[in-house]
Amino acid sequence: MPKQPLDVVGIGNAIVDVLAQADEAFLKAQDLAKGTMTLIDGARAETLYAAMGPAVEVSGGSAANTMAGLASLGGRGAFIGKVRNDQLGGIFRHDIRAAGVTFETPAATEGPPTARCLIFVTPDAQRTMGTYLGASVDLMAEDLDADMIGRAKVTYLEGYLWDAPEAKAAFLEAARMAHGAGRKVALSLSDPFCVDRHRDSFIELIGGHVDLLFANDVEICSLFQVDDFDRALQEVRGHCEIAALTRSAKGSVVLRDREVHLVDAEPVAKVVDTTGAGDLYAAGFLHGYTRGRGLYDCGRLGAIAAAEAISHFGARPETPLAELAAACMGGGH
Amino acid sequence: MPKQPLDVVGIGNAIVDVLAQADEAFLKAQDLAKGTMTLIDGARAETLYAAMGPAVEVSGGSAANTMAGLASLGGRGAFIGKVRNDQLGGIFRHDIRAAGVTFETPAATEGPPTARCLIFVTPDAQRTMGTYLGASVDLMAEDLDADMIGRAKVTYLEGYLWDAPEAKAAFLEAARMAHGAGRKVALSLSDPFCVDRHRDSFIELIGGHVDLLFANDVEICSLFQVDDFDRALQEVRGHCEIAALTRSAKGSVVLRDREVHLVDAEPVAKVVDTTGAGDLYAAGFLHGYTRGRGLYDCGRLGAIAAAEAISHFGARPETPLAELAAACMGGGH
Repeated sequence: MPKQPLDVVGIGNAIVDVLAQADEAFLKAQDLAKGTMTLIDGARAETLYAAMGPAVEVSGGSAANTMAGLASLGGRGAFIGKVRNDQLGGIFRHDIRAAGVTFETPAATEGPPTARCLIFVTPDAQRTMGTYLGASVDLMAEDLDADMIGRAKVTYLEGYLWDAPEAKAAFLEAARMAHGAGRKVALSLSDPFCVDRHRDSFIELIGGHVDLLFANDVEICSLFQVDDFDRALQEVRGHCEIAALTRSAKGSVVLRDREVHLVDAEPVAKVVDTTGAGDLYAAGFLHGYTRGRGLYDCGRLGAIAAAEAISHFGARPETPLAELAAACMGGGH
Repeated sequence: MPKQPLDVVGIGNAIVDVLAQADEAFLKAQDLAKGTMTLIDGARAETLYAAMGPAVEVSGGSAANTMAGLASLGGRGAFIGKVRNDQLGGIFRHDIRAAGVTFETPAATEGPPTARCLIFVTPDAQRTMGTYLGASVDLMAEDLDADMIGRAKVTYLEGYLWDAPEAKAAFLEAARMAHGAGRKVALSLSDPFCVDRHRDSFIELIGGHVDLLFANDVEICSLFQVDDFDRALQEVRGHCEIAALTRSAKGSVVLRDREVHLVDAEPVAKVVDTTGAGDLYAAGFLHGYTRGRGLYDCGRLGAIAAAEAISHFGARPETPLAELAAACMGGGH
């Protein structure tokens, strides 16, 4: 049976999210910087979990969320990432496959357990994250399926992978494979602290290996060490073919050479939890892009998918996004 | 340090809920009777899970939900139930303790994994459950803490425990311990099919060991094999001191001898998921009862707690129930 073509293959940390409500005093007491992601080791993960309120577990991971969103929009996606052969790993595998995403990376049979991200949602709907990377750092270049990457129009990489040396090597290898097959490479900067940890190598990477860059305003300003979003817009030109830069409630800006599109955010009745907003924006954008839509429409699809994600607890879509997108965009994709 | 008095100790299956949305066609294809709980073995649990959509994991278990609700109302509760020393067992332990409930039953170090309940929520907000009892059937009489049971005003037992022979023996032993200490025993019938499996021994149990009976209309009619709720009301008199009988949107009826209270259901803007409605009704009722409130107020507190549970996905409270109860009841408890 000939293998199906793919729209996007996402490569990232395979993580189960553990979500609970928390107040600002809790964040302060636990020394967590609100709105950001902090890497934590196994011991800190246990201490923090013990202090956490009653939680719900939902499969997560930035690129994995993006792939679940792409599938919900009707796109053909695959995911590459590493879980352990434990119960949380089984949950991750079930959920991403049940979302309609191809996931075949074998589970690690030894080493640390499946990664988890402790997510504290404050009453203002902001999320603050502590991530224990666990088994996900053991993603190796040999876990990459060159055939799968060659079949995908876009290979989408999450910046968070840069935190693990082996995974970083796999990440670069995946970019080479994609370009070798004449395909596009997309990168999400993931988090301002992640940018701060890896600024120089990110700039080098973006210049040499990235066709589509996703970032929010804080991340892109951090990347170029500028205070002002408009200056960051100037800096990003020439570094990559397309940049899609999100600004929360202010919408997004999509750039290609001299082409600039300002896209409004999609209105949301009540913002419940912003976890996954960036991931789902990328899902909508990439769905439009791989289906040949213009950049403005790509940004619109990103805004629609992000709006669904922030209107409920958790990062994966609860409503079939294809229906929402059809309602907003007039169908045809 | 002298041990604190307790309001209620709940004894039941220690279960992690796995919730997903499903449509009626799915229930039919999987041969699941809508609105009920079916016991499934490990192999069927795997098949059913493989067919299930993307899910969220939340700690559950009927009596455990009731204890979490009681704690949320400000009551002092403890739970006795069996998990395995696996990741799901760790999640169960974390969540019930984080809810403010004492839970000290040691985890099994061998045997089947922690119990899970696959819950399919249909668009009409009804839940249909397949439960793999796993480690929870290994609850033994030696897991009972006689001192804890003696300190609690009420020992609350879930009917579901009757499905596991060892747990059933523990259940009877707990009732004897409670009565031996001059305390009350409460029972929830749990499910009409559960009643059907154990009718005769339930009637015997209720006559000899139960002071407070919780049941819904379908369960109480099944228990006495009558078609009509009013006939069931006549039958239940004399079998136990107090009966609290719920009727979904029609509210509840609370009986003690010739005393009868009709309690309206608390209005809910949108019913999202009825999972946990009965469990949380019992939580509210028992909180009122152990704080010396009259039976009508107990029913009202049950209605308020149930209304919160059905207004979101999952069975454990998301909003502190003490605040809701104070707002509805005028404080003072």
